[in-house]
Amino acid sequence: MSMANLTPNPSFSLSIRIELPNYIGILATVTSSIASSGGNLGPIDLIEQTRETSIRDIIVNASSTEHAETIVQGLRALPDIKVLNVYDRTFNLHQGGKISIANCMPLNNVSELAMAYTPGVGRICSAIAKQPEKVYEFTIKQNMVAIITDGSAVLGLGNLGPAAALPVMEGKAMLFKEFAGINAFPICIESQDTDEIVNTIKNIATVFGGVNLEDIAAPRCFEIEAKLQQELDIPVFHDDQHGTAIVTLAALLNALKLVRKSIEKVRIVINGAGSAGIAVARLLRKAGSKNICICDSQGIISINRTNLTPEKQEFAIKACGVLAEAVEGADVFIGLSAPGVLNPDMVRSMAKDPIIFAMANPIPEIQPELIYDDVAVIATGRSDYPNQINNVIAFPGVFRGVLDCRAATINSNMYLEAANAIASLIGPSDLNKENIIVSVFDKRVVTAVSDAVQKVAREEGIACC
Amino acid sequence: MSMANLTPNPSFSLSIRIELPNYIGILATVTSSIASSGGNLGPIDLIEQTRETSIRDIIVNASSTEHAETIVQGLRALPDIKVLNVYDRTFNLHQGGKISIANCMPLNNVSELAMAYTPGVGRICSAIAKQPEKVYEFTIKQNMVAIITDGSAVLGLGNLGPAAALPVMEGKAMLFKEFAGINAFPICIESQDTDEIVNTIKNIATVFGGVNLEDIAAPRCFEIEAKLQQELDIPVFHDDQHGTAIVTLAALLNALKLVRKSIEKVRIVINGAGSAGIAVARLLRKAGSKNICICDSQGIISINRTNLTPEKQEFAIKACGVLAEAVEGADVFIGLSAPGVLNPDMVRSMAKDPIIFAMANPIPEIQPELIYDDVAVIATGRSDYPNQINNVIAFPGVFRGVLDCRAATINSNMYLEAANAIASLIGPSDLNKENIIVSVFDKRVVTAVSDAVQKVAREEGIACC
Repeated sequence: MSMANLTPNPSFSLSIRIELPNYIGILATVTSSIASSGGNLGPIDLIEQTRETSIRDIIVNASSTEHAETIVQGLRALPDIKVLNVYDRTFNLHQGGKISIANCMPLNNVSELAMAYTPGVGRICSAIAKQPEKVYEFTIKQNMVAIITDGSAVLGLGNLGPAAALPVMEGKAMLFKEFAGINAFPICIESQDTDEIVNTIKNIATVFGGVNLEDIAAPRCFEIEAKLQQELDIPVFHDDQHGTAIVTLAALLNALKLVRKSIEKVRIVINGAGSAGIAVARLLRKAGSKNICICDSQGIISINRTNLTPEKQEFAIKACGVLAEAVEGADVFIGLSAPGVLNPDMVRSMAKDPIIFAMANPIPEIQPELIYDDVAVIATGRSDYPNQINNVIAFPGVFRGVLDCRAATINSNMYLEAANAIASLIGPSDLNKENIIVSVFDKRVVTAVSDAVQKVAREEGIACC
Repeated sequence: MSMANLTPNPSFSLSIRIELPNYIGILATVTSSIASSGGNLGPIDLIEQTRETSIRDIIVNASSTEHAETIVQGLRALPDIKVLNVYDRTFNLHQGGKISIANCMPLNNVSELAMAYTPGVGRICSAIAKQPEKVYEFTIKQNMVAIITDGSAVLGLGNLGPAAALPVMEGKAMLFKEFAGINAFPICIESQDTDEIVNTIKNIATVFGGVNLEDIAAPRCFEIEAKLQQELDIPVFHDDQHGTAIVTLAALLNALKLVRKSIEKVRIVINGAGSAGIAVARLLRKAGSKNICICDSQGIISINRTNLTPEKQEFAIKACGVLAEAVEGADVFIGLSAPGVLNPDMVRSMAKDPIIFAMANPIPEIQPELIYDDVAVIATGRSDYPNQINNVIAFPGVFRGVLDCRAATINSNMYLEAANAIASLIGPSDLNKENIIVSVFDKRVVTAVSDAVQKVAREEGIACC
């Protein structure tokens, strides 16, 4: 069974144009056909109508390409109905790319040209040459983030390379703009060598006020982040690590309130020791957690294992065993791993009121439907279930914060305070099993996170303005 | 005498807010004061009016910062008038940068998020991983140009470095967008080493459909361009060279029609052997010119000189001497050098109906006022004189052309045809001493240049679509 088939979703969304005769009940035949193929019906538009026939656009979500094909075949088989056109809405939306460059002022005449470009611009260049910090005042640097990848760990899809990673980076740029008003530009690097990547970023850093690392495989990502933080005078943030960690901690703080357990005492199992797993573990430890067990594909990260990376060694414990053994009696399961690796029996072996964060993307470690009654809280990375643990809740505000106060770095105290700020957006009366974390569309989020980050920056004297 | 002082211009533009009592003739005092200080009056706005007083915003162009100060001092000295506020319009316009990132579609709900970002975007990534050429269909690459500089030759200002060059690159990006609908993004490289620059560009080329090199000093620019053309599969264009060459040739073709001389027969002196001078010489030669003499700061580039760069050797001639000797009897002077190096006596020593292109920027080799009656044609790089030879006439159309047909390179046949296309936009009846080249705002230009470039690309089999 493919776990993906359980729920039709907008990533497999079709727009189907049909022509149908005008007799009573004909549209019902169409919608019944879609329903019986398991399609999820969206808006139905009337495009054109004559005395005899109507043309309509129907939006249908499917759960896979094959499923989409089945839905269309079902419609084609109906008598009297013509399928005129079918297009995949997701592919359609990405056509030509998802971001563009916009001019901040008009260029309609020679005066405007002479001020924005030569000869007027020469005065601005001279001013920056004389006082280098003016680059923050008179250029895009003050509000521009580089979204940098080598394409080595694209979503859950693996090492697809820089070109195939670009659609994700463009999407990320959209999120920066939409949620925090930050300009962000994708840089996809044609090299997977650490020094080469670091050097390339150093060479192009002038234009940017911050660097967001994205979809770079572990353990290379740790080294790249550390080297860049040392060598650049602008903040560097690996979102897959710290964005995930911030939002996970925020959600966990609220989930723990619900079950009345303390972060110091709970036993936490993290499955997945990639960049996100390690970063979550580090931030939970910083937040007070004392009992963390990380598993990777070979089971518990035990001190008895050889060839552990330095990051894994940091969390190696005496115990050993497989994931099923690790979760037995645990209070919290945090999955940053692979589809379907957790099963209901494993969940039932956990301590009372288990908390499950099944964040593998797009298909979680366990499908929420299967354990809903067995757990105190279940959260995923998906938008079509309650409790979406989504980095979009963290990174726009984090960058808004550091850009606004021109902090030269982003540090773990900022992560911690950002998590606290996010958690506190759910008040006691709103906190429940299906509401442990705010929506990505909650307008308060960016300001709350940005304020928290700026407060730390000012307290620690790393804010420049 | 500073040549810049001759003409007030928009690069020194002030917005002055004044409060003045409401009596007849008071505004005339203000405008007379500005006129007597030599300021150039623009729009006068009424901001607020009470029974007793008015507040107005006055826009005034000056010719330098000192001149602007003099104008304001003149106003402050007037009785009854209060200068409330003065701001420099050019600096004001550059505040915060001149371009931004815009999203091509909304992100208002979970469905839109799921299509533009995860999980939907994963389908696009997989499609590109499977068929790499789809990066042109589903990402920004198809219409995105990198504007690349090392800041080593910023306008006429010299080696200001990458940060001080950024305002020019942003302005260039505006021109790409405004004149050709092309997205362009500034990359300012923190290195002036050829191999380092080439390597950095190679590493980040994935995101871009073309590379525009800008403000890179000669002779490094020649080597960088050649290496990139060899190593990248996207077109590379050094605008300071080829943009200048295309527009210069276009203007020269029309000027020669006016004086009924042929390009094969005229004697041409090019002053300035930087990137633009060499590129202009090369393109003129390709267009049929047989008698070109290039001068640099040491005079005629003669075969008797030692230590000539390979590019200078290409044009070394038997003659030697200073610029004044070179221009004696010449038909055409093309200046890509420095303010004021040509004087009226030198112009008068030229052949009958001399053609002068004085393109040093922002201050020309000779001020047009000084020789207007002595020449058949005078053109400059400035927008405030007739016959502006401006790269903006060429590069947007050149890139529009290569991006639209996905040509892998830009070559000199394209330069030649682009120049012919630009020249032909001035019909015989419109051609006159003050109109040898179209305006940058002529809407026909981009299409004409793009068509010419695409025609060459198709004829030579280097178009991909």
